[in-house]
Amino acid sequence: MRAVDLIRKKRDSGEHSRDEIEFLISGYTRGEIPDYQFSAWLMATWIRGLSRAEIAALTEAMLYSGEVLSFPELPGKKVDKHSTGGVGDNTSLILAPIVAAGGLTVPMISGRGLGHTGGTLDKLESIPGFDTALPLADFRRVLHQCGMALVGQTAEIAPADKKIYALRDATSTVENIGLICASILSKKLAEGIDAIVFDVKTGSGAFLQKERDAVRLAELMVEMAERMGKKAVALITDMGQPLGRFAGHSHEVIESIETLRGRGPADLLELSIELSAWMFYLGERSSSVREGRALAHQLVASGEALEKFKQGITLQGGDPRVVDDYSLLPLAKNRAEVKSLSSGFLSATNCMEFGMALAQLGGGREKKEDPIDPGVALEFHKRIGDAVAAGDTLVTIHYNSSAGLAECRTRILESFVFSDQPVAPETLIRGLIGAGR
Amino acid sequence: MRAVDLIRKKRDSGEHSRDEIEFLISGYTRGEIPDYQFSAWLMATWIRGLSRAEIAALTEAMLYSGEVLSFPELPGKKVDKHSTGGVGDNTSLILAPIVAAGGLTVPMISGRGLGHTGGTLDKLESIPGFDTALPLADFRRVLHQCGMALVGQTAEIAPADKKIYALRDATSTVENIGLICASILSKKLAEGIDAIVFDVKTGSGAFLQKERDAVRLAELMVEMAERMGKKAVALITDMGQPLGRFAGHSHEVIESIETLRGRGPADLLELSIELSAWMFYLGERSSSVREGRALAHQLVASGEALEKFKQGITLQGGDPRVVDDYSLLPLAKNRAEVKSLSSGFLSATNCMEFGMALAQLGGGREKKEDPIDPGVALEFHKRIGDAVAAGDTLVTIHYNSSAGLAECRTRILESFVFSDQPVAPETLIRGLIGAGR
Repeated sequence: MRAVDLIRKKRDSGEHSRDEIEFLISGYTRGEIPDYQFSAWLMATWIRGLSRAEIAALTEAMLYSGEVLSFPELPGKKVDKHSTGGVGDNTSLILAPIVAAGGLTVPMISGRGLGHTGGTLDKLESIPGFDTALPLADFRRVLHQCGMALVGQTAEIAPADKKIYALRDATSTVENIGLICASILSKKLAEGIDAIVFDVKTGSGAFLQKERDAVRLAELMVEMAERMGKKAVALITDMGQPLGRFAGHSHEVIESIETLRGRGPADLLELSIELSAWMFYLGERSSSVREGRALAHQLVASGEALEKFKQGITLQGGDPRVVDDYSLLPLAKNRAEVKSLSSGFLSATNCMEFGMALAQLGGGREKKEDPIDPGVALEFHKRIGDAVAAGDTLVTIHYNSSAGLAECRTRILESFVFSDQPVAPETLIRGLIGAGR
Repeated sequence: MRAVDLIRKKRDSGEHSRDEIEFLISGYTRGEIPDYQFSAWLMATWIRGLSRAEIAALTEAMLYSGEVLSFPELPGKKVDKHSTGGVGDNTSLILAPIVAAGGLTVPMISGRGLGHTGGTLDKLESIPGFDTALPLADFRRVLHQCGMALVGQTAEIAPADKKIYALRDATSTVENIGLICASILSKKLAEGIDAIVFDVKTGSGAFLQKERDAVRLAELMVEMAERMGKKAVALITDMGQPLGRFAGHSHEVIESIETLRGRGPADLLELSIELSAWMFYLGERSSSVREGRALAHQLVASGEALEKFKQGITLQGGDPRVVDDYSLLPLAKNRAEVKSLSSGFLSATNCMEFGMALAQLGGGREKKEDPIDPGVALEFHKRIGDAVAAGDTLVTIHYNSSAGLAECRTRILESFVFSDQPVAPETLIRGLIGAGR
């Protein structure tokens, strides 16, 4: 088998066999197929597409390019959630403690923020001492002790994905649902889970802005996860405006804690409860999603979920006092208000721009190597549907350096759209894909 | 400007500006754009295609990636021919002396053989001492002294093409007429010529087997050459069977000399005369193609063309005695006859297979680095349309090592197709593209 022939085959719209996919992925991962051949294959694949069978083979090849964890020593089902990413999305920090408090195991391997989206690891690392780079033995120990562990991808997990993703990023071959699906699943299924809930975002702050694309990816991920013997559903959720009131690392940690206290924003609570409920149901902890919802609510109300979060922070080396003293978190020194120049009903936002504005303030990354300022944040005072008068504060900017502040302010202002007519806000949970329907 | 954005643009079927093409080509040539990005762009380009304006910009960018020769010190027009390559095609060795003997200048930069096609440089190098790697100063001197010089591409000529071609070869992005056109023209136009005649082969031994594809490439090359201010025509010629009686380096040199003596095979003579005639016409040496034909015939008949060839050999360090003593050329030690198992009329050949069989005997290359045995050859005794009886010799194999001989013999036998009915042979010169029509 030769890479050049497989490139030609995909170029000419051919369908690869399982062996061909395995040859390409293992060859590339081991450095036997050079970058320039693999990128040509990626472009041919991006344009010509992949069949379901090819995506399944690709997922499997990428999954088995590295270590696939399993936790036979832990009782009960292992479940996880994956989100395609958005602005102000910190549901992981809320649902992991809820689900672990409910008795399931959540071996969550997360990523870092890039571009307009935040990353779970970055948020957790704003907690002093919190270590997301646990060696596998510690990962197992923490999971065993408290039922949840939130860590970063190690070099052993799906190395193919790491290498391929970097190449896709440099060659404009990212946005292809087959490649995206294989990338996501190869990492998540390496966690040794029994079930997974996908949160596929759609709208102006989502990676896949069109609902149709989000649905296609969701269907594909659920199908592929099921092919690999996992239970799976996907929620299609709205990212037409930030989730919760804050975007910014420390502030999202605070918001998570507030939500676990039952005092968080309604949308963030709703989505966290819904995702937890599906995890309970797929993990066979509840006999229905409805029952899962009730359980999740109860674990928040009783304080058990918050206690679990505190335990998780402690076990991963973080300072658990942050739960009761937010001033222990790095917070920005200065505030600036962004006031509306218009009046009317807030009808839409260019939500991705908020993420980019935050990144510009230091609270995000353009490149993987960029450092992050966890203290900066955007605080949103208005939601779609709200009546706004000129002069009302739309956003409070929490910043450290005033460099770029003016530009950031303009960027934010221009990302709000107003209407003369009352506007009905979009439903947060737009759809459900998978066995549970 | 960023390569990743230009890759995306082509991926999405966009049309590049002249500046964008220039950015890509000069960036890649200088090593600022890495192979893996350029190969992704090549694949997107292969699939999405290039507009006429993009091909013109690409040709120009590749041409000016290196040195563009000019010979203001030499009187008269500079003309050349380019062939897309075939089996037994040694017209360059015949027409260059004819055209130079007629008073025009032929600064011919040629390539080496690869796969099933032979290369002019390799053929010339079977002449003891013949040096195709002349430094530019010597190239000029030889041109000045005898009106022709046949050399290889130097590092200074179209370096972009050299680098891009190697990458295309490794990434299955060769067969795209826009890329092919730019590759050919960027090298040929660097010769500082006023006019060019393209010999675009079609049929079973050609790179572009379908006549439609050959015509498209021919039209494109003529248009692009004219855009660059050159006179140009293209002949579409048949490569459904080998040209002349021999394929193999030394033997093709002998055949060229025989043809210059007026004793060569009819097809080889006809095509060489026709190409020379067009070179005379475009180079304003004759007032019509018909007059050019007459001039070419006359230069052969008078022996002036052969004398010119002898002079050229001498000036490039070769032994001119080969013209009168073929035993000075490296010739294979052994002969084997391939006899027909069928009787009937020879109706077609799988001509590319002859080239591959020759390569297998050592008379061709699979990879650029492979050495060549100039002595081996295939001698063809039958032409399409000939009546063949079982037991008739179809081919004489001139070989040195019997390794692979049996396989070669089978390969050759299987490449002849017979019919019960008489067959009219294909016209050699199938069509003409360009201003001369």
